[in-house]
Amino acid sequence: MKIISLSQVDKNEVHMDGASGAWKQLPLGSEDGTPVYSYRVFTVEPGGHTPYHQHPYEHMNYVIEGQGALVNEKGEETPLKADDFALVNPSEKHQYRNKGDKPFKMICGVPKEFE
Amino acid sequence: MKIISLSQVDKNEVHMDGASGAWKQLPLGSEDGTPVYSYRVFTVEPGGHTPYHQHPYEHMNYVIEGQGALVNEKGEETPLKADDFALVNPSEKHQYRNKGDKPFKMICGVPKEFE
Repeated sequence: MKIISLSQVDKNEVHMDGASGAWKQLPLGSEDGTPVYSYRVFTVEPGGHTPYHQHPYEHMNYVIEGQGALVNEKGEETPLKADDFALVNPSEKHQYRNKGDKPFKMICGVPKEFE
Repeated sequence: MKIISLSQVDKNEVHMDGASGAWKQLPLGSEDGTPVYSYRVFTVEPGGHTPYHQHPYEHMNYVIEGQGALVNEKGEETPLKADDFALVNPSEKHQYRNKGDKPFKMICGVPKEFE
């Protein structure tokens, strides 16, 4: 059993190509002994975004706060707001963008091998 | 790709033995084609609780709102509040209790076979 507040979790800037103003936390992951999945949290600054890319595993999201958008394979944006859940399927091209003037923060679950 | 607000998801009372005032939603699960994991949301009313039990799979929690407690194998309570993450390991006995006067709401992720 592990309990941790998000505010206690280290936050590191994402340095991937195509990322801008994005920060990552790993509140629950393989180092905690999670059997299957890992929960990361991404915070995207106003004007920032994650890479527009694809990979062979899914994302399972929950939006904690802020106003964002999820970009699909056609480049179309769908709004994302607090209390929204999102599933990005394996190999679907996607990007998360902050569309507001405050931080956009969301959980992004992935299989632990890809945390 | 799927996006859904929690407010749009059906909510059903939990009728398991040992549950009281607990409600379940399934915003992302096997019917959506999730490859590995499912995200349920439990809302526990003031004075309510989930069963005090164990099972062979883990829980991965994020507290959305409210004041609760996670009970461990010894029967000891640890507080749970908004923005807390929790991992309950497979086969660990556990219970979630509402300790406040408003609903206690949390994500509870599990392997999709056990959603």
